[in-house]
Amino acid sequence: MVFEFLKAFFIFGLSKKQTIKMAEKYVSIKNIKFLLNEVFDVASLNRFEYYQDYDKEGINMSLDAAKQIGDTYLFPIYTDMDKNKAYYEDGAVKVHKGLKTAIKTLAEAGWISAHDTYENGGQQMPFVVMNAGLFVFYAANANAAAYAFLSQGASNLIQAFGTAELKSTYVPPMYAGDWQGTMALTEPQAGSSLTDITSSAEETEEGYYKIKGQKIYISGGDHEATENVVHLYLARIKGAAVGTKGISLFVVPKLRNENGRLVSNDVSTAGIFGKMGQKGYVAAHIMAGENDDCRGYLVGEPHRGLSYMFQMMNEARIATGMIANAQATAAYYAALQYATERPQGRHLSKKDPNLPQVLIIEHADVKRMLLFQKAITEGSLSLLLQCSYYADIASVSTGEEKENAHLLLELLTPIAKSYPSEMGIHSVSAGLQCLGGAGYCDDFPLEQYYRDIRVNAIYEGTTGIHGMDLLGRKVMMHSGKAVKLFMAEIQKEIVAAQSSEFLKPFADKLAERLKAIHELTMQLIQVAMNNKPEVFLADATLYLEYFGTITIAWQWLKQGIVADKALQAELPEDDYNFYQSKLHTLRYFFEYEVPKTKALHERLASSDNLTIEMKAEYFM
Amino acid sequence: MVFEFLKAFFIFGLSKKQTIKMAEKYVSIKNIKFLLNEVFDVASLNRFEYYQDYDKEGINMSLDAAKQIGDTYLFPIYTDMDKNKAYYEDGAVKVHKGLKTAIKTLAEAGWISAHDTYENGGQQMPFVVMNAGLFVFYAANANAAAYAFLSQGASNLIQAFGTAELKSTYVPPMYAGDWQGTMALTEPQAGSSLTDITSSAEETEEGYYKIKGQKIYISGGDHEATENVVHLYLARIKGAAVGTKGISLFVVPKLRNENGRLVSNDVSTAGIFGKMGQKGYVAAHIMAGENDDCRGYLVGEPHRGLSYMFQMMNEARIATGMIANAQATAAYYAALQYATERPQGRHLSKKDPNLPQVLIIEHADVKRMLLFQKAITEGSLSLLLQCSYYADIASVSTGEEKENAHLLLELLTPIAKSYPSEMGIHSVSAGLQCLGGAGYCDDFPLEQYYRDIRVNAIYEGTTGIHGMDLLGRKVMMHSGKAVKLFMAEIQKEIVAAQSSEFLKPFADKLAERLKAIHELTMQLIQVAMNNKPEVFLADATLYLEYFGTITIAWQWLKQGIVADKALQAELPEDDYNFYQSKLHTLRYFFEYEVPKTKALHERLASSDNLTIEMKAEYFM
Repeated sequence: MVFEFLKAFFIFGLSKKQTIKMAEKYVSIKNIKFLLNEVFDVASLNRFEYYQDYDKEGINMSLDAAKQIGDTYLFPIYTDMDKNKAYYEDGAVKVHKGLKTAIKTLAEAGWISAHDTYENGGQQMPFVVMNAGLFVFYAANANAAAYAFLSQGASNLIQAFGTAELKSTYVPPMYAGDWQGTMALTEPQAGSSLTDITSSAEETEEGYYKIKGQKIYISGGDHEATENVVHLYLARIKGAAVGTKGISLFVVPKLRNENGRLVSNDVSTAGIFGKMGQKGYVAAHIMAGENDDCRGYLVGEPHRGLSYMFQMMNEARIATGMIANAQATAAYYAALQYATERPQGRHLSKKDPNLPQVLIIEHADVKRMLLFQKAITEGSLSLLLQCSYYADIASVSTGEEKENAHLLLELLTPIAKSYPSEMGIHSVSAGLQCLGGAGYCDDFPLEQYYRDIRVNAIYEGTTGIHGMDLLGRKVMMHSGKAVKLFMAEIQKEIVAAQSSEFLKPFADKLAERLKAIHELTMQLIQVAMNNKPEVFLADATLYLEYFGTITIAWQWLKQGIVADKALQAELPEDDYNFYQSKLHTLRYFFEYEVPKTKALHERLASSDNLTIEMKAEYFM
Repeated sequence: MVFEFLKAFFIFGLSKKQTIKMAEKYVSIKNIKFLLNEVFDVASLNRFEYYQDYDKEGINMSLDAAKQIGDTYLFPIYTDMDKNKAYYEDGAVKVHKGLKTAIKTLAEAGWISAHDTYENGGQQMPFVVMNAGLFVFYAANANAAAYAFLSQGASNLIQAFGTAELKSTYVPPMYAGDWQGTMALTEPQAGSSLTDITSSAEETEEGYYKIKGQKIYISGGDHEATENVVHLYLARIKGAAVGTKGISLFVVPKLRNENGRLVSNDVSTAGIFGKMGQKGYVAAHIMAGENDDCRGYLVGEPHRGLSYMFQMMNEARIATGMIANAQATAAYYAALQYATERPQGRHLSKKDPNLPQVLIIEHADVKRMLLFQKAITEGSLSLLLQCSYYADIASVSTGEEKENAHLLLELLTPIAKSYPSEMGIHSVSAGLQCLGGAGYCDDFPLEQYYRDIRVNAIYEGTTGIHGMDLLGRKVMMHSGKAVKLFMAEIQKEIVAAQSSEFLKPFADKLAERLKAIHELTMQLIQVAMNNKPEVFLADATLYLEYFGTITIAWQWLKQGIVADKALQAELPEDDYNFYQSKLHTLRYFFEYEVPKTKALHERLASSDNLTIEMKAEYFM
């Protein structure tokens, strides 16, 4: 039930005409512009021909346009998509009635095809600008926007590896928002372990393959807001090798084109999963080839499917980090709004009950919780845009610059995916806590954010998988070249920050922690070289957290350098507050978050291999 | 939807007849017996006359009986109470059909009145045994059991401060499970700030008071599983002083007795709150005196209501810690069961895809997550029973022993409430993560535990409130006497542990951290003495976390001493594994959790008062 009258009670402070400005609803465009223009100078990407049309004005306009779409088509249906969730009935999946318009609008505004060439109907938009726009959509309503950007990922994959025919058949309707793209990887017995996929593909003389198998947890896997669904489907061609080297990639549409008509392709939906959150965003269980009439079209070469799929997976990992961070950001603004409207309690030094109650934003513990959310979400957004920027360089530059950017992106992908997902959970929880009992009730959106965000630490590789990816693969690749580049990048900012009186202590602290993680990494590599992979990777999840915290500290230092410099000039009040906000949040991150790395270090450096030694039968 | 067939997929390891024993369903009676008999030697309480009938055999029988009730009446309806949640219709609150039987069964088995005298129909059961039983019920289904134990708290309050007439009218039907007791404190404008209660009470010549006001979030506040509801209701007698000193306590029944008939007492229900979890456990919005005909009966003296209510609140705080920990415990067993049934992936040193997949409990990262849950839940349970033991000594002993136990209980109450609530959230989250995608879906109970447990950090005082209670009140009371007693208690265990080769490093580590928090506390008290209460308490929540971690480390050391000693004898396999499990989990706690106190220390000792300096207008 919605206690509208009760809400009025909770926030009666409003009637007092408090002077504190109303918070943004779900995202801060000002902050995104700060990051794009002042921190990353994204307009300078127009030195590359592909991006030549993107100057600062164009970038800002794109963002404002994104906010308009979010305000109009996405944010208004966020809670309603939860309360009127997707459901399965008579073989079909029913979704919220606003979804079709939302997807179409995103498509028509050019966001699905944004990065593609003008020739293909795209806008040659830099990834970093596109992702900033996507972040706005995700913050407004990730459960709607995610459908559109799954189609984007599926289109990109076909554009990269598909035949001309596959491209012309499947990409345009996905760009138009008429067809839904998916990634169909997981099977009941093959979740984290994709090696164990058993879906099969049998070659026919007609050029297509006959597909048979079940896929579960397929996001956007079936629904009525689009006319067709295009699965990017992993399967084994009969006779292929066991393991990942026998997996191929297919386009498996729900409806296939026969003589100009769309007919069933024998892909049916067994049901959708009842999820704790993201209830408007379908996770389907699909069955291909139950009637031996499911056609799949090979993408690229046989047996190389998993390596192709990694392109979409890597994009989806960044997207997952963005979704998590967008949800945490929207939750922060909801908590902030409550904190600036709800009176409760008094200052500790003025407890006279005759005095009126103060707004809860006056309490240090509430400010601490809000600062935590700001530190996590704005730090994470900075990293996500940093990664997008590397993706741009890796995409349009050449030579060493291109290669280095690619390595940095590879290294940082597990962090960009996991840090916002894991810390976002805590961030939303802090937001919920700001509301007290109201945070637990569905009259306010916090409880939905709390439920919605939780899955991001599972989607697209659990945090444990990403820990192993970071330490076992990314840190080790090319003899540690990516890590060396990463450290050099951070070192640059440390040096720049050390010349500021305000920033120097933070720069010094980061330098110290960077040295520490470097030493630790060397120690761990020694373990790996002693041929103890289990021991080496036993606490990879903690290593990921450590590495992630250092990474976000770097991003805060980067933002701090810009804010510190800006504050040396006379500023309008709004800008002054904005930059002060950045410096206070930087302080928060270094005071409250960075010290946690010492605890992680102590554990990671310890020689007690207790999780290895713990026997299954001791669990009771 | 419940994918029974899919569940079979997930856990097909079962068909392989794995040798690993099935996990307990929701609680370990073996562990509770270990704590009661071996760690706390609860039977020795029978040196007090009041508890003379409780020997080890009787204690064990009580526990087995509790498990039987849990198995039969509570656990089977846990998920169903969520899926068929409580709802409000035509002025009445409908609850799950199994609830009435559950409450009646708990009542008839004597658990509601358990601690009361034989004369009053109780069993003179020690608090520590009773709470161990309650823990079993909460683990089985806190959303059902909590109704019964709210009535217990309300009864205790009337027994302690009510007139003979109030006692004879209200207590027996609550003990019988026919009437529901509640605590009616919160009002829309008075949540954390009880000072601001405005419900009013007007004395009449008939001896009762006329009550008027609204109360929100009233747990068990109205429902059809009992015949009547008895609110322990805070209100201000007209003309009373402002602030807490003007608050009185009343019994305000939903139905009052007039000439042997129960008639309406003008207490109506405006609705119930739509909560994220605990959906079977009603939180009502009640309105008293809308028709000017609500009678309240004063409990004790006027204007002392809040101090009386603190008895029930303190009991409810321990109960909240128990509920949180019970939910986390049940979640742990659900995760453990999955981990011992679900095959996925291979050992890092044997990745050959031709080998069968291994059970996920074989993976170090899964073991880490399970150990985390064990460390949090078994450590917390030990603390909760420790507190209950102090409550017993404070209740039946005399002189200094009684007084000291009371002080220790007061000191540890904010920790016993908050540590299991806060860490329990993380614990359940780790349990959910063990299941991957399945953890997020409602075919498995983890997602419900995740939703259910979250509110405990808000109920009965948010964590922020308890941080201030601990540092601002409990640490400071009687010139720090409680802290001194606490440190002496820990010191005893440190000395005992230092004589064991295995335990000595852990004892030394605890000694070092104890010294550190002592020094920090002195430093903080200095801030308080400089008359800066805002600065002093700004990070009280972090202090609570620090103090809590030390407290649980102490409880682990205590358990470790017993286990270490037991392992010196030849043991049957089951016992051997049990004690090994304790020592491994102790190692986990000291390796992974205790180091976190260093990060907390660094922050708490810092002089950067940024949360004080952060201005409301910087939040944007």
